[in-house]
Amino acid sequence: MRVDGRTNDELRPVHIEPNYLKHPEGSVLISVGDTKVICAASIEDKVPPFMRGGGKGWITAEYAMIPRATEQRNIREASKGKLSGRTMEIQRLIGRVLRSVVDLQKLGEKTIWIDCDVIQADGGTRTASITGAFVAMALALGKMVENKKLPMLPITDFLAATSVGIDEEHGIILDLNYIEDSKAHVDMNIVMTGSGRFVEIQGTGEEATFSYEQLLDLLTVAEKGIYELIALQKEALGSLAEQIVQNRSEGEETK
Amino acid sequence: MRVDGRTNDELRPVHIEPNYLKHPEGSVLISVGDTKVICAASIEDKVPPFMRGGGKGWITAEYAMIPRATEQRNIREASKGKLSGRTMEIQRLIGRVLRSVVDLQKLGEKTIWIDCDVIQADGGTRTASITGAFVAMALALGKMVENKKLPMLPITDFLAATSVGIDEEHGIILDLNYIEDSKAHVDMNIVMTGSGRFVEIQGTGEEATFSYEQLLDLLTVAEKGIYELIALQKEALGSLAEQIVQNRSEGEETK
Amino acid sequence: MRVDGRTNDELRPVHIEPNYLKHPEGSVLISVGDTKVICAASIEDKVPPFMRGGGKGWITAEYAMIPRATEQRNIREASKGKLSGRTMEIQRLIGRVLRSVVDLQKLGEKTIWIDCDVIQADGGTRTASITGAFVAMALALGKMVENKKLPMLPITDFLAATSVGIDEEHGIILDLNYIEDSKAHVDMNIVMTGSGRFVEIQGTGEEATFSYEQLLDLLTVAEKGIYELIALQKEALGSLAEQIVQNRSEGEETK
Amino acid sequence: MRVDGRTNDELRPVHIEPNYLKHPEGSVLISVGDTKVICAASIEDKVPPFMRGGGKGWITAEYAMIPRATEQRNIREASKGKLSGRTMEIQRLIGRVLRSVVDLQKLGEKTIWIDCDVIQADGGTRTASITGAFVAMALALGKMVENKKLPMLPITDFLAATSVGIDEEHGIILDLNYIEDSKAHVDMNIVMTGSGRFVEIQGTGEEATFSYEQLLDLLTVAEKGIYELIALQKEALGSLAEQIVQNRSEGEETK
Amino acid sequence: MRVDGRTNDELRPVHIEPNYLKHPEGSVLISVGDTKVICAASIEDKVPPFMRGGGKGWITAEYAMIPRATEQRNIREASKGKLSGRTMEIQRLIGRVLRSVVDLQKLGEKTIWIDCDVIQADGGTRTASITGAFVAMALALGKMVENKKLPMLPITDFLAATSVGIDEEHGIILDLNYIEDSKAHVDMNIVMTGSGRFVEIQGTGEEATFSYEQLLDLLTVAEKGIYELIALQKEALGSLAEQIVQNRSEGEETK
Amino acid sequence: MRVDGRTNDELRPVHIEPNYLKHPEGSVLISVGDTKVICAASIEDKVPPFMRGGGKGWITAEYAMIPRATEQRNIREASKGKLSGRTMEIQRLIGRVLRSVVDLQKLGEKTIWIDCDVIQADGGTRTASITGAFVAMALALGKMVENKKLPMLPITDFLAATSVGIDEEHGIILDLNYIEDSKAHVDMNIVMTGSGRFVEIQGTGEEATFSYEQLLDLLTVAEKGIYELIALQKEALGSLAEQIVQNRSEGEETK
Repeated sequence: MRVDGRTNDELRPVHIEPNYLKHPEGSVLISVGDTKVICAASIEDKVPPFMRGGGKGWITAEYAMIPRATEQRNIREASKGKLSGRTMEIQRLIGRVLRSVVDLQKLGEKTIWIDCDVIQADGGTRTASITGAFVAMALALGKMVENKKLPMLPITDFLAATSVGIDEEHGIILDLNYIEDSKAHVDMNIVMTGSGRFVEIQGTGEEATFSYEQLLDLLTVAEKGIYELIALQKEALGSLAEQIVQNRSEGEETK
Repeated sequence: MRVDGRTNDELRPVHIEPNYLKHPEGSVLISVGDTKVICAASIEDKVPPFMRGGGKGWITAEYAMIPRATEQRNIREASKGKLSGRTMEIQRLIGRVLRSVVDLQKLGEKTIWIDCDVIQADGGTRTASITGAFVAMALALGKMVENKKLPMLPITDFLAATSVGIDEEHGIILDLNYIEDSKAHVDMNIVMTGSGRFVEIQGTGEEATFSYEQLLDLLTVAEKGIYELIALQKEALGSLAEQIVQNRSEGEETK
Repeated sequence: MRVDGRTNDELRPVHIEPNYLKHPEGSVLISVGDTKVICAASIEDKVPPFMRGGGKGWITAEYAMIPRATEQRNIREASKGKLSGRTMEIQRLIGRVLRSVVDLQKLGEKTIWIDCDVIQADGGTRTASITGAFVAMALALGKMVENKKLPMLPITDFLAATSVGIDEEHGIILDLNYIEDSKAHVDMNIVMTGSGRFVEIQGTGEEATFSYEQLLDLLTVAEKGIYELIALQKEALGSLAEQIVQNRSEGEETK
Repeated sequence: MRVDGRTNDELRPVHIEPNYLKHPEGSVLISVGDTKVICAASIEDKVPPFMRGGGKGWITAEYAMIPRATEQRNIREASKGKLSGRTMEIQRLIGRVLRSVVDLQKLGEKTIWIDCDVIQADGGTRTASITGAFVAMALALGKMVENKKLPMLPITDFLAATSVGIDEEHGIILDLNYIEDSKAHVDMNIVMTGSGRFVEIQGTGEEATFSYEQLLDLLTVAEKGIYELIALQKEALGSLAEQIVQNRSEGEETK
Repeated sequence: MRVDGRTNDELRPVHIEPNYLKHPEGSVLISVGDTKVICAASIEDKVPPFMRGGGKGWITAEYAMIPRATEQRNIREASKGKLSGRTMEIQRLIGRVLRSVVDLQKLGEKTIWIDCDVIQADGGTRTASITGAFVAMALALGKMVENKKLPMLPITDFLAATSVGIDEEHGIILDLNYIEDSKAHVDMNIVMTGSGRFVEIQGTGEEATFSYEQLLDLLTVAEKGIYELIALQKEALGSLAEQIVQNRSEGEETK
Repeated sequence: MRVDGRTNDELRPVHIEPNYLKHPEGSVLISVGDTKVICAASIEDKVPPFMRGGGKGWITAEYAMIPRATEQRNIREASKGKLSGRTMEIQRLIGRVLRSVVDLQKLGEKTIWIDCDVIQADGGTRTASITGAFVAMALALGKMVENKKLPMLPITDFLAATSVGIDEEHGIILDLNYIEDSKAHVDMNIVMTGSGRFVEIQGTGEEATFSYEQLLDLLTVAEKGIYELIALQKEALGSLAEQIVQNRSEGEETK
């Protein structure tokens, strides 16, 4: 049994509260166990300079933690005057994976700004951010369709993320909390679509290595977790979820 | 009647949720109308270099907004790489006023870090931050007394803050929301103790000026609001509030 | 008697030397006791981006100290690579209060840059900066009228600033020098117009608080000092002062 | 046939010139096709603050490109005053993977600084950096053993990296050059040891996704490339390579 | 005749006002024509880390201009957050040349901080800064001798600086003002001691070159100017000047 | 005999490898003894804002060292987030001297970016950079003439740089290596054209001074070295060198 009583392939309790904030076009508060992230999606009516005139849209993400999201207070990056390498890696990851399930041509020359602000951290903040950000983005784009600013929802599939790892005591485990993450020899973040295709695999041995067989087992457990997360996203999105399912099946037909 | 149906000397609905976060020694979520701020207090066992060896403690504050706390997305200060003048002013204000109701000698060589993170903004974020930060700080210090790390609560009085302003249409109004703040000719932030003494008065004509009589009226309305806020702080603090009341009366006797 | 032999409500000797520098449109060297500030006003023929097209002008200020303006050498902010919170607060204050006595509509789409460079500091640098900057600005605008770049002087009233404080030994005192400022429990900066209206009140208890009665007494003493400062501004401005007096009385009539 | 005449699972010509620089403890110039990287390893006799007193060593890496390493001149990060997210990601990656094949306990409280300076870029700069940095590090550690500063070589296995990708025209290809990289839908960097274990897998769909079957095929092709790279590392390292082989087999026995 | 009526080898009027500021150990206001610089010398009782324990002192300089020292307002380097290349060059030059006439061994482990703040600029600010800084430094060191903090004045010779240039119309000219400097093809700054030895020669063709013969003529004219400047330094220093003269002759004897 | 066996007026072995890099318009690897610098020239089809519309071109330079170019690893300026004063001085010098031998009018509104990246340092990196950068620039401009983007080579003369110094043991020496540079009392960098005219003289006493006679001797030795360097530049440039010789003689005729 794991430190919090879960079985090896069990997610922590996950809640997604849609429309958590008043101002953004789309927003959620996602909690994955004690990890809590406010995800907001803002639509801007232009694209960055390097994309202008191409007719395509863009998605970019920012990620931050409040200082006492963690056990020890961490220094604000705004006070230090620069972003850490870790923050930059996470920001780039979130933006990149969301772009894989949006038809940027259909979005047109708009930028979707994703803000993920971690208010409480207990491991898995980047995967919770991706899972929540997808919902916030879908809400924002859904509102644009509603307001006739877009003819149709340009989302081609669901997208969720989770972590898997290898631990000396338990072997392969799903959705590591902070304590588990600190002890794991191998740590892998997996981002998958609703059709079970990979968008991103980042597996890392922490002063350790892993074998081909272990890799296959890690992927199997991750897939189970991702499907459960996507089921929760569907609940949170209601009728918007149906539209995404339909987009996906149309996409498969045209392939 | 004001834009949200309030009378001129009426506060917006105020809620203080104590112990909002898992990790910090003290924390609250304060909402004043649609303005919502997470306030956290962290105790560090040392003081900044310029105070070492003096036997006194220190209180310092940081303030930030998440990008979509506001109607228009604002750029993260961590991304810009520096704090705005406005942020610095607010941070200095929060730290300074809290120091006026803590006996820093009794605190000893410790630093209280206050973090105020605005997750939704509708005017009055700095005064809500002060009112919430006081409670978070009291909770953190209360826990230290409980854990025998301090012999007694070093808080000498309650402390709360609100805004008052002068508006062409309504005259003097209490607790301005964002729309009211944008239109006001005169804007004043008042920080007071539970004994009705001033800690800070910051009154500003926005391309305008104000008379002595107007000043007196502004102060009267502010005082009413502050007392109501302190009543809510007492509720949130429970038995800790009684200890503060007792400290205050002892302080008055020794004067 | 105070440390420098003054009575409680006595200003330090104040001198304003107009046209101190060769290049700027308007400049003064103001000395208030041992505090000496070079104030320069520059007129730029455009406004910041957020104001373009609105037909209104803008006033912005920068403040700095040379390293040995003070007893201990302080590190240059240019070397540190960023402005301190204190500097930012003062810069924002100077710009804001000057805007309250200029008709920005009549100024048109121009920016007035105010530079206050403290070459010697002995307390009250921000209030000396405001008092001097007003004169530098009036000289610069007067020159524009002379050169037919403005039809009339867009200044609606005089503006000066001083400090008042409460000291254990002397009670309420006017125009604090550095030693007095270090000891005062309460420190208040007051900015007023020539008509006796307030533009800014910033009163702060330094690990202390103050009562309503004390506040009223502080304001009375401050007002006396401000009127004396404005008399000196009038001398320095000569015939320009008459024009401001006339603007003010016309402004009052139209109200 | 690929743009440069290679078959799908063929590496570009790879050359490793050991001891390329005069000053560093270990250095190489590695070229992988037209990609050329100077890798240097420096040994410092202390560890970063967060590791002091633990008896373990540390490995950290820095990565940069000269401005005309690329077709278009890119702006120097030193001139911009900050590192890009891409640079930070690569630096973290290089340090992390090298730490997986060094026994940090045996290294003792020393830091190995790895510098990878790309002087010419044609795709695969991060994988070439890792492959070259391993050799530079081994040379530096070998010299320490020679100079009796270390009792034995603390390297537990070989380490090399390459890229694989999926291209519409060719399917799965090995060791992508810049043109191929720009067109690939899926891009994966693989870091493996001499024993065929994974240290890092980073697979990314670029506005695209990939299936489980594709993933398995990508890994097979990558493994072939890695073994060829390790053969070249052995040549460059001469007798040091034998020591690593021996360390590895001893490590396997003790497991 | 030159633009301001001078002959080719004539300095502008030079005034040195010693002890211009209240706080620094040594200070002057130097004016060279319309160029005015406040020079201050501060003594700190330690040396930078790289010099500790060596028993020698250090001299370092900082240089800045107030924004309206110039015809066009220039942006504050503190606001830009970094020093320009020009500022850094000048700072390094001032520190370096002063070190050539101070016996750093006799100074002991102290740092002399030189601050040169240009309040009005009309060409030659760096040479005026050097000439003024020498006097400020001598005053500060003289005060240390007076206060028994140093056994003797550790200054080995006088030091002054001026500029020479080549102008299409006038040929070789001394002490260029701003207009002359803008037009000159060749610009040279010369720093010399009271014994006529060179400390620094910086000659630059501005999109132009100069011959060996021109160089010799430039040096002759510069030497004349330097001797006149040193005569003025002697006046400003009074009896301290005699001590320097004596140190110099003793230094020559021991050679 | 000097530390490396040279006579006092002997250069170290110098090699210039043209077209060292694949991507830049012009590039060389220059080695002067153990000092090795990659110089690249890039042509951009616009000028900086302050020069637009003037019809003239611009030349700007950047200089950097890789961390282990030196005996001790030096911290990357990109990691520190700012350029040192030394780097800025060198960058400004390189750009300035190259501008003296290019007819910027004939270049037209283009910018030549010079990048000098030191990969190994043993004294004289700035003079090696200038000597190498001249060749890289000539190659780049030659290619533009070849591609009909320029009607003729806008270079008016050769340009090379070397150092001379005064050493207690050897007297005046040419082309100082790192050890010699550390010990020299006087250090001078000389930049000259192929016609023997000076472009820049920077002579500095390091806590020392030098006489007029010493200066003349230094210049004589420097001139000898420069002519040898220019002979090597001619070899590296082949037929382009003839064009420069012709431009120079035409330039002399029109004078």
